[in-house]
Amino acid sequence: MSVVVQHIERVDPEIIAGLAECGVATVHEAQGRKGLLAAYMRPIYSSTRLAASAVTISAAPADNWMVHVAIEQVKPGDILVLAPTSPSDAGYFGDLLATSMQARGGKGLIIDAGVRDIHDLTQMQFPVWSKAIFAQGTIKETLGSVNVPVVCAGALVHPGDVIVADDDGVCVVRREEAAEVLKKSREREAKEEEKRQRLADGELGLDIYQMRERLKEKGLRYV
Amino acid sequence: MSVVVQHIERVDPEIIAGLAECGVATVHEAQGRKGLLAAYMRPIYSSTRLAASAVTISAAPADNWMVHVAIEQVKPGDILVLAPTSPSDAGYFGDLLATSMQARGGKGLIIDAGVRDIHDLTQMQFPVWSKAIFAQGTIKETLGSVNVPVVCAGALVHPGDVIVADDDGVCVVRREEAAEVLKKSREREAKEEEKRQRLADGELGLDIYQMRERLKEKGLRYV
Amino acid sequence: MSVVVQHIERVDPEIIAGLAECGVATVHEAQGRKGLLAAYMRPIYSSTRLAASAVTISAAPADNWMVHVAIEQVKPGDILVLAPTSPSDAGYFGDLLATSMQARGGKGLIIDAGVRDIHDLTQMQFPVWSKAIFAQGTIKETLGSVNVPVVCAGALVHPGDVIVADDDGVCVVRREEAAEVLKKSREREAKEEEKRQRLADGELGLDIYQMRERLKEKGLRYV
Amino acid sequence: MSVVVQHIERVDPEIIAGLAECGVATVHEAQGRKGLLAAYMRPIYSSTRLAASAVTISAAPADNWMVHVAIEQVKPGDILVLAPTSPSDAGYFGDLLATSMQARGGKGLIIDAGVRDIHDLTQMQFPVWSKAIFAQGTIKETLGSVNVPVVCAGALVHPGDVIVADDDGVCVVRREEAAEVLKKSREREAKEEEKRQRLADGELGLDIYQMRERLKEKGLRYV
Amino acid sequence: MSVVVQHIERVDPEIIAGLAECGVATVHEAQGRKGLLAAYMRPIYSSTRLAASAVTISAAPADNWMVHVAIEQVKPGDILVLAPTSPSDAGYFGDLLATSMQARGGKGLIIDAGVRDIHDLTQMQFPVWSKAIFAQGTIKETLGSVNVPVVCAGALVHPGDVIVADDDGVCVVRREEAAEVLKKSREREAKEEEKRQRLADGELGLDIYQMRERLKEKGLRYV
Amino acid sequence: MSVVVQHIERVDPEIIAGLAECGVATVHEAQGRKGLLAAYMRPIYSSTRLAASAVTISAAPADNWMVHVAIEQVKPGDILVLAPTSPSDAGYFGDLLATSMQARGGKGLIIDAGVRDIHDLTQMQFPVWSKAIFAQGTIKETLGSVNVPVVCAGALVHPGDVIVADDDGVCVVRREEAAEVLKKSREREAKEEEKRQRLADGELGLDIYQMRERLKEKGLRYV
Repeated sequence: MSVVVQHIERVDPEIIAGLAECGVATVHEAQGRKGLLAAYMRPIYSSTRLAASAVTISAAPADNWMVHVAIEQVKPGDILVLAPTSPSDAGYFGDLLATSMQARGGKGLIIDAGVRDIHDLTQMQFPVWSKAIFAQGTIKETLGSVNVPVVCAGALVHPGDVIVADDDGVCVVRREEAAEVLKKSREREAKEEEKRQRLADGELGLDIYQMRERLKEKGLRYV
Repeated sequence: MSVVVQHIERVDPEIIAGLAECGVATVHEAQGRKGLLAAYMRPIYSSTRLAASAVTISAAPADNWMVHVAIEQVKPGDILVLAPTSPSDAGYFGDLLATSMQARGGKGLIIDAGVRDIHDLTQMQFPVWSKAIFAQGTIKETLGSVNVPVVCAGALVHPGDVIVADDDGVCVVRREEAAEVLKKSREREAKEEEKRQRLADGELGLDIYQMRERLKEKGLRYV
Repeated sequence: MSVVVQHIERVDPEIIAGLAECGVATVHEAQGRKGLLAAYMRPIYSSTRLAASAVTISAAPADNWMVHVAIEQVKPGDILVLAPTSPSDAGYFGDLLATSMQARGGKGLIIDAGVRDIHDLTQMQFPVWSKAIFAQGTIKETLGSVNVPVVCAGALVHPGDVIVADDDGVCVVRREEAAEVLKKSREREAKEEEKRQRLADGELGLDIYQMRERLKEKGLRYV
Repeated sequence: MSVVVQHIERVDPEIIAGLAECGVATVHEAQGRKGLLAAYMRPIYSSTRLAASAVTISAAPADNWMVHVAIEQVKPGDILVLAPTSPSDAGYFGDLLATSMQARGGKGLIIDAGVRDIHDLTQMQFPVWSKAIFAQGTIKETLGSVNVPVVCAGALVHPGDVIVADDDGVCVVRREEAAEVLKKSREREAKEEEKRQRLADGELGLDIYQMRERLKEKGLRYV
Repeated sequence: MSVVVQHIERVDPEIIAGLAECGVATVHEAQGRKGLLAAYMRPIYSSTRLAASAVTISAAPADNWMVHVAIEQVKPGDILVLAPTSPSDAGYFGDLLATSMQARGGKGLIIDAGVRDIHDLTQMQFPVWSKAIFAQGTIKETLGSVNVPVVCAGALVHPGDVIVADDDGVCVVRREEAAEVLKKSREREAKEEEKRQRLADGELGLDIYQMRERLKEKGLRYV
Repeated sequence: MSVVVQHIERVDPEIIAGLAECGVATVHEAQGRKGLLAAYMRPIYSSTRLAASAVTISAAPADNWMVHVAIEQVKPGDILVLAPTSPSDAGYFGDLLATSMQARGGKGLIIDAGVRDIHDLTQMQFPVWSKAIFAQGTIKETLGSVNVPVVCAGALVHPGDVIVADDDGVCVVRREEAAEVLKKSREREAKEEEKRQRLADGELGLDIYQMRERLKEKGLRYV
């Protein structure tokens, strides 16, 4: 029942880097408005934008044993994605585990539970998106699994999927769709850039997107 | 049913500027402790204090079409106030719409729903007070109204009312009461300034406000 | 029923200072994973770490009268701990009360309710951990008590207990256990420092904590 | 500031009775999907469906003084609608007040706060829709107002508006629109009855509402 | 650290029976509006009113080991009061444990966490007040304590305190105050009975409680 | 992007019937404590216990168009499982859709959003487990998908998986594991039955499960 999958496929680092540049809102739109984790997942400090390969953890509530197991599976450029098997706010992760992650080239943590030592994590520039900040300690008693599919904050994450995270929250991109999603994200960005210029010049969205006719048809009245 | 009211009355800019200086807590007190939006309305970045004329939007859940319609109605010094017709966390607003708002002199957004691109909005210094930060995209399918009375985060807002917002949250001042509320806010500030000095000098509120007698009458015992 | 206890025992300032250095997560662990206030208690600004002696307040909902009473009981190095007798988000505390607290050497506020004027409080460097930020004014009508045991955000706090608070939240240490808890916290810190170094060098927690055997016994499979 | 409006307009009892028969979902739809109070407003017992004229109360948090004031204004067929000026779960209302209401012909209570003695209220068949069930006692210290417009659970209610409430929640109908809304509700009901029969006979909504063409145009694929 | 206190003092059964008759709202008022557990504590079925002696449990999150330990300490007329050491919704308790409780004369469960098998518990007429209904299983790995003081749903409960619970929620009465609280509850009931009759006869609270003068003094205006 | 999968595999009806008899708590345990939907999913009326094959719906927020599409795919014994693409409390489903479902042999609805007409649904004995009860109407504008994998209330559901639901909540059993899970559930039930008898006879869990030794080893002290 409890397994550690040691070999997972990851996405080409250049594609991951490209997705990081695009950010959560763009990537989410480009892949058809899917893949967002719940809005309660917030960064412990602002202004980080990253993309990384998911090493997933299914862990018992208030039990961080599997985090230790997972770190051994982390390769440079990976991010941990932890989903508890029932809701928990406990602080599964702190500065020692972050030290271990950084030593192995790990880039951060996505956790549908609590994190602690956030002052130290901020100093270390180790980014975390979490449901809670809570100092509550955890135990090491129950097995879980590493690198199995998990549902984290309402989103399905497979090991090796790309996690994109920034101040807007967290989005998951399926590994096999990452290249295509990057392409669409780039296209979206290009189009947005052109729109941004026109909007900055004072043109209205109503005109740029030619909405007036359709609003009228639907019956909008100006009084 | 769906209307855009194009001409609304606004408050004299000097009064608005005065209310901005006083801030949410003072203005709320000065007008008889009314007008606060719910405590869950939080700024996306700190240290902004503003006052502005409300351009209101009643919008369908997860549908930001009316935002485009509303921006055309914005005049310099206005702020958008969006209330969804049923609860929604979706990200109705991002950097493109903020660009358009700034091009028209709009000063910010109050939204009882979600906002996204908050890193960009922070860079642009475009302030937003929202219920959620969420990248979830919206559609443009259902009509709503612009510049009708709305209930936003538990408070009734009429178009042209003054919105005061700062790190403490958001408060609405009825347009026709704004001058009077400013006057009372100024008086309150003056009184507070004198109290602040006395408190800083070590005097106790118990003595400044002459509370000891009444506490005794009510039966407070010191042991 | 409503009493003000004027003489309370406090912990030796050096012990308090030591607990401040250790921080919430360490102290909480060192005392057997107890004493945390609920995770919803958040600081109004980040990067403060303090410890202080609790002056407790039991107050009616949306009534801050007892705060004035309590401030008279504050000695340098104390912190106010306010628990409402039924849930409230109202803004019991603002810059005037903070001015008074600072004039008396008070170090901060822990409140299972709302606070306001947070921009000013931040400028004054007066730290507050609260359940809400809300400008809602309060009244002065109902007696409460000062320096009686209270349940604040789920934790029992006696007057004179040590409050430790930082970016991770708030923890209470029983007065009579403070010296022992500091000792254990220091020991824990020492051990953690050694671990930190080994983890930074790339050693795994699996090996440092000798987990492999027990994981195997429990049935963890690597695939 | 604190007023009791003694004379309010009410809707014709036959119209009110008609709206009660239609129920919340139908009435809400018939008036253009507006007027619903928040989903957290739940009945203390099930299977009541009523409509009544609103006698509104704006009350301080955890202070039920104005309920006594309001009951004097109640006429047979009225319902109390209480909105606290800041959030409260306190138990403003219990069996004694319900006894008083029933003696005056009052039909129930809508309260965006707490209620208590619910076992007795159920026995008395006095229906209440509330945010919370909580025994917490209240005080009688602060004035509020009776029969002024209030925002209750996110909806604007004017005195004399019709409240429709059933197991689905609570909806407010503007007094001046009640006759028209009843008419539209009846029409809606008639149409629904015909649809119900066809659906019961196994016909599909896809066919009854002729959705297939539009689904195809939008690009739905059957695989 | 983990202890089971085997001998606790209990309140005279007649006093407990008396408190049960009075119910939560009355008892809570009679003891000075204190002792209520949070409003989220709800019964799994309605119409039970009981009072019982608390056997307290401090348990790890999602770990029900201590429930087994506690049941051995239960005497006829006792009720279990479980507080997790950090928040949990897990289903600590189901029909097997209820069977064991009933075999020992235990009367119910108060749990600031989850319960399951609620259909069976209802059939067995084993009452539970809980924060959640959740089938999530628990483990038996971490020690806790039995019959130590706990904070349960925001209220301090000592072993042997009297728990009063009904459809309005849960209230704790300190063991040493129980006789006095019963006396005051009876007095309160007597007074209420007289008021109830007068209210039923149509007299107004405004007159019975002589509120008119004070309302006028405070400035209430009738218009 | 938007697809309707018309042919899905279902589990043998006898296995489904068996799982229904076992109920949520047992099935969840028997399959290794996985598959529970969030605790906020509650039945609109009590005492139903069912199992059924999932016909899944991925729908836009506040848009119930896909429900109509899904009903055509329903076969006798199926249950609808609706997950919105972003959080919504809107009332997607009412008595007309239930009529259509019953006409086709559909057994109920699991919806991570709102439902309405619950009085009628109760009369019809059409069971629903939902996140909210809310009369808010929905639109029919945006395509979604039917019979694709969805994450509903935190659990991954594939079309054809078995949904088990009762008063304790909702659990999903993977289609390919259903036979095995039933077997284990039956075994668990058998074991529990024997335990129930012993517990009813007054034997303690401490003895039946032989916990005393391990408790002692871990250091539990009886005082």
